[in-house]
Amino acid sequence: MTISMDCDIVKPENDTTLQVKRKMEEQNDGLDPKKSQLARTQNGAAGKRVIVPACAPNLHYTPLKTALCYDVRMRYHAKIFTSYFEYIDPHPEDPRRIYRVYKILAENGLINDPTLSGIDEIGDLMLKIPVREATDEEILEVHSKENLEFVERSSRMKREELLKETEKGDSVYFNNDSYVSAKLSCGGVIDACKAVVEGRVKNALAVVRPPGHHAEPEAPGGFCLFSNVAVAAQNILKQYPESVRRILILDWDIHHGNGTQKAFYNDPRVLYISLHRFEMGKYYPGTINGRYDQTGEGKGEGFNCNITWPVGGVGDAEYMLAFEQIVMPMAREFQPDLVIISSGFDAADGDTIGQCHVTPSCYGQMTHMLKSLARGNLCVALEGGYNLDAIAISALSVAKVLIGEPPDELPDPTKDPKLEAIEMIDTVIHTQSKYWKCFQRKFGNAGCNFSEPVTETVISKSFPLQTAIRQEQFRQLSKEYGFVTLPISKLEIPDDSVLCSPEVFQQSTIVIIVHDTPEIWAKRDVITGVIDPSTSIIVDSPLDFTKWCMNRKYGVIDVNIPQSLFEQDNYSAMITSQEVLLYIWDNYIKYFPSLAKVAFVGFGDAYAGIVHLLGHRDTRATVKAVVSFIGRKQLKPLVPLVDESLSDWYFKNSLIFTDKNHPCWADNESKKPRKKFGRVLRCDTDGLNSNMEERFEEATDFILDLFEEWSDSE
Amino acid sequence: MTISMDCDIVKPENDTTLQVKRKMEEQNDGLDPKKSQLARTQNGAAGKRVIVPACAPNLHYTPLKTALCYDVRMRYHAKIFTSYFEYIDPHPEDPRRIYRVYKILAENGLINDPTLSGIDEIGDLMLKIPVREATDEEILEVHSKENLEFVERSSRMKREELLKETEKGDSVYFNNDSYVSAKLSCGGVIDACKAVVEGRVKNALAVVRPPGHHAEPEAPGGFCLFSNVAVAAQNILKQYPESVRRILILDWDIHHGNGTQKAFYNDPRVLYISLHRFEMGKYYPGTINGRYDQTGEGKGEGFNCNITWPVGGVGDAEYMLAFEQIVMPMAREFQPDLVIISSGFDAADGDTIGQCHVTPSCYGQMTHMLKSLARGNLCVALEGGYNLDAIAISALSVAKVLIGEPPDELPDPTKDPKLEAIEMIDTVIHTQSKYWKCFQRKFGNAGCNFSEPVTETVISKSFPLQTAIRQEQFRQLSKEYGFVTLPISKLEIPDDSVLCSPEVFQQSTIVIIVHDTPEIWAKRDVITGVIDPSTSIIVDSPLDFTKWCMNRKYGVIDVNIPQSLFEQDNYSAMITSQEVLLYIWDNYIKYFPSLAKVAFVGFGDAYAGIVHLLGHRDTRATVKAVVSFIGRKQLKPLVPLVDESLSDWYFKNSLIFTDKNHPCWADNESKKPRKKFGRVLRCDTDGLNSNMEERFEEATDFILDLFEEWSDSE
Repeated sequence: MTISMDCDIVKPENDTTLQVKRKMEEQNDGLDPKKSQLARTQNGAAGKRVIVPACAPNLHYTPLKTALCYDVRMRYHAKIFTSYFEYIDPHPEDPRRIYRVYKILAENGLINDPTLSGIDEIGDLMLKIPVREATDEEILEVHSKENLEFVERSSRMKREELLKETEKGDSVYFNNDSYVSAKLSCGGVIDACKAVVEGRVKNALAVVRPPGHHAEPEAPGGFCLFSNVAVAAQNILKQYPESVRRILILDWDIHHGNGTQKAFYNDPRVLYISLHRFEMGKYYPGTINGRYDQTGEGKGEGFNCNITWPVGGVGDAEYMLAFEQIVMPMAREFQPDLVIISSGFDAADGDTIGQCHVTPSCYGQMTHMLKSLARGNLCVALEGGYNLDAIAISALSVAKVLIGEPPDELPDPTKDPKLEAIEMIDTVIHTQSKYWKCFQRKFGNAGCNFSEPVTETVISKSFPLQTAIRQEQFRQLSKEYGFVTLPISKLEIPDDSVLCSPEVFQQSTIVIIVHDTPEIWAKRDVITGVIDPSTSIIVDSPLDFTKWCMNRKYGVIDVNIPQSLFEQDNYSAMITSQEVLLYIWDNYIKYFPSLAKVAFVGFGDAYAGIVHLLGHRDTRATVKAVVSFIGRKQLKPLVPLVDESLSDWYFKNSLIFTDKNHPCWADNESKKPRKKFGRVLRCDTDGLNSNMEERFEEATDFILDLFEEWSDSE
Repeated sequence: MTISMDCDIVKPENDTTLQVKRKMEEQNDGLDPKKSQLARTQNGAAGKRVIVPACAPNLHYTPLKTALCYDVRMRYHAKIFTSYFEYIDPHPEDPRRIYRVYKILAENGLINDPTLSGIDEIGDLMLKIPVREATDEEILEVHSKENLEFVERSSRMKREELLKETEKGDSVYFNNDSYVSAKLSCGGVIDACKAVVEGRVKNALAVVRPPGHHAEPEAPGGFCLFSNVAVAAQNILKQYPESVRRILILDWDIHHGNGTQKAFYNDPRVLYISLHRFEMGKYYPGTINGRYDQTGEGKGEGFNCNITWPVGGVGDAEYMLAFEQIVMPMAREFQPDLVIISSGFDAADGDTIGQCHVTPSCYGQMTHMLKSLARGNLCVALEGGYNLDAIAISALSVAKVLIGEPPDELPDPTKDPKLEAIEMIDTVIHTQSKYWKCFQRKFGNAGCNFSEPVTETVISKSFPLQTAIRQEQFRQLSKEYGFVTLPISKLEIPDDSVLCSPEVFQQSTIVIIVHDTPEIWAKRDVITGVIDPSTSIIVDSPLDFTKWCMNRKYGVIDVNIPQSLFEQDNYSAMITSQEVLLYIWDNYIKYFPSLAKVAFVGFGDAYAGIVHLLGHRDTRATVKAVVSFIGRKQLKPLVPLVDESLSDWYFKNSLIFTDKNHPCWADNESKKPRKKFGRVLRCDTDGLNSNMEERFEEATDFILDLFEEWSDSE
């Protein structure tokens, strides 16, 4: 700060004010006495006019252009047609892919190339980067010699041999130009990254093919010959060891980039984050390598992050959530010097291979977010994407943001992310919280799991919560209605699993309520993740039915199915439920002397036991109605052991209530679950308790109806 | 898409390939047969060369400049000096504030004004918006006539009257130029917004003063005369009803913008989000209006969001978290047509009023995020900020991002947000989840609370969890060690609150364990927020001490203090603990015939009862040691009723273990809690269980030491 000031433009309060102000500036401005001292020396006496000489803008980025890599020679790699079908339905990795991206840039004035022939001078916004073949040395940084030689040989193969190799490979094809195209594609990405790193451009868009991210060090695959992005990253790290120490590769292609992951799996210098469809490994490339828990190994442990969509059909809502919750916090903590987007556009809306719905706006939004990293050092390299219209408009949206436009708004920002995606994002956060500070303190570890490790010491002083809850339930039922335990021998379940109302065996009408351990509604400490019991309640939804039965003087058997601690699915709980219900039927109910009418009421996973019993015993003489509330739990089909007509009976005599967002309604509103699942109804709410509040009356009316007791009650 | 193609640049595979490819383009390209049909018609015969005529770039934003509002006349408003102290220590809302921002823009070449005199032509990057006075009509859109007339009158007041009004007001000062400066400041923001909305500039920076956000419709306040941003927003909504239907005002000044909030409190067209220090309403402006639960009223309900820091010292970590978790999702869902930042820089690192640590990089990052909204329609208006250096570098960082630079990286992206801030962010998400979809499905409602409402029906079928847990604890202690209940008459607490080992009254050595209900470690359903009991455990930390005592044949009294359901603080639980311990002491322990040594072990809030007892009875004859694990719970001072020396005794005979991140260690590592709190030790871990694992041996050794039983054990 200087001690002088622009005197003439301060209108004095009065004569002395000016002097006072000048004094103030001397004494206070700059707030750093040393600096102020320096300024005084440099500027000489007070009262001298400030001159701020015109200077070049202190901007490292705005004045530069965006690099563009494109070369028509990359269109020569093409599938050799062997049948008329391939004319009609060409291979999706089609040479026109890069042409269409280039064309839309021209149509929107981002580049100036009237004949679309790939000229060098393309206008003021983008800078053409000449595309050259990657050298053997560069490629060998990632790929094996054998692999390189194999691809090289394809340039000299005869048609028959090319077809043979195409047949043999893992979704790759070859012609005599494949080798050159692949080397250009790879060299293009390398030089695009170099231009960014050297500060010659603000960022870069490499419109290249064949794509690269499936090409493993040892073998081509998935339409990919060389692992373009991996080769580029490896060579940048080698050639700019001072300025580029860490690279983030963000792969939003709908497929897992197995090749890229493999190249850096034990390398902490490269953080690979991929968002892709996984579906229990059934989606291409179909190995466990793409699973969320593959987090790197050796020094690279924690530097690999797979965000794996369990279902197709994801779109803006899921990608924005993943970016805000996972990608950006993690990337900021990683502090990359360069960001490379492995930019497949096959998650784009309209891509029939990806079957997802990411809009061009969302690609723009994600690009904008990534621009906030690494001081804007960003290189976008094309990977997959097979709908020519979709990749063009998506790439245009990305290119605009690279040039400096703000991203367009999302067309529907109120759309809910799919529940499966929310769960997966939570799982990924939990998985990565082992490595990344940003996830460790975030909302009680994302509310997902224990924030402290479950050690031996912990186990030695802990009891399962469900035992306590069932005991409490037993205490209440016994105090209120005199319930007692019904002994179940041989099966290894707690004594209090099956309770019954007094004298149940004498009753003519009974209701058998089969449920999971009741829910807890709890306040969780956001810091530690621990539940505070003092503000938590056990919500015993089955109790509504018990009360209703007791009012109507029905007998009640209450079956609690304990679940296995820490088990992923509830398979064993379902088995237990089946065993317990068969046991009760075979050892008790069959022998109840006056029994005329039975209804089953199921809750959660435990309802599986009811369905199993109905399929394995002919209960129709007494069982009149089945009502179940299953929330988001899996639907169970009735599989009749002998009599096929059971399915029809089940459909007529059951009501199965599901959450509004139960997966069975996900894809097609009009498609109802099949008859073997019973009469499945969709609630307007989510959550067992809300479902109950909504449908309790309908459920009890249904039972009364089938008990033919309407006249009694109404 | 066109059916013709750039034939010459496709190298044919062989003679037929070209024809085949052409056919493919005809049949498949565009993927839309209708479009393809159209293209064919437009382009005539196949084989014609593509021409994409050079066109103006389809960019709405990049070609434009950033608007700058600055006028030296806004420096005329200044405090009239009445004492020498005001020369030395000038009023923080100092005329140089805007000058310093303007100057740093020039020094960095963002504008070109060598004499800093406010010329019109300022170069290629920014566009000078002439500043004019806001009209009465404009101001009256927000302010009352009386208020406007009052401020107008200040231009004609005598010095004495000005000083009187300055004295009277709520932190405002006046001179004869205040009125003009205030009208210019207000007019500047209006015109900056207009320039953005009309598309004449890409965005705008209004370097104005006096600031506005504390000025309420009826009265100036907090250095603010007219509510600049509110007046601008109101007039924009009025004048551009078609193009601007919703405005987001994001207020990152460290103070709550009470004036802005009030202006739109019942208006759904304006979403006001403010991040500010609140501190139970003690921080300026010091009313409950700035509290997190003030969410708007009437039609405006849900369109007001206060993110209230409970403590000072927040910085990048907290702001980035709040932006990513709250501001951006909410803003995207709101879909504003214009974003105005009420840009006080008093949260900036170095501001002695704000005492926070937001870096220039973080201001850049936040600006970059907000640019992704409203197609980049963003106007930044200066509010507070009193460190001249800090506001200058912060404003420079914002200006660079406005112009198009990527934001700088955060200097320390690995810094943990303060726990109090994490909790508050969680609370705000929960509060706003009533109104915003983005928060409803997010990680079990942010893990904060029940996702379904606690209705009457729910209460009718629910029991408190802590009852079940204590019962389970009782079952275990009774089964394992034969514990029985110790009757506590008169006090209204459950029967099982106080348990004791067999024959405890005969023992010479007893340990009294006083604890909150044990913790639950649980897996929470991220969708519904419900706890799954099957995967949850009760972690009974006090059990370690019980086992240790039983091994050493000490008597044990186990006191469980139930807490009030849904109570905000645990005040009543602490009172209960005090009552119960006094009762046990007065009715039992005093009369134990052989008692020689007593140790207390406390856990959580319940430990308050121990401290209370020690202050209210002289227990020193038998009580030898006090050990407590309090996690993050509040420290309790020992207040001796009679004997002052008790404090020293307590300090010598106690160990109070706290979490690593207990607030008592927050500000100053070297500052230890005072003696009256006992010997307070900081664990290296957070969480009761981790603390125990770390310090159990130290705790038991301490007890043995004071029991003088070292020789026995070692």
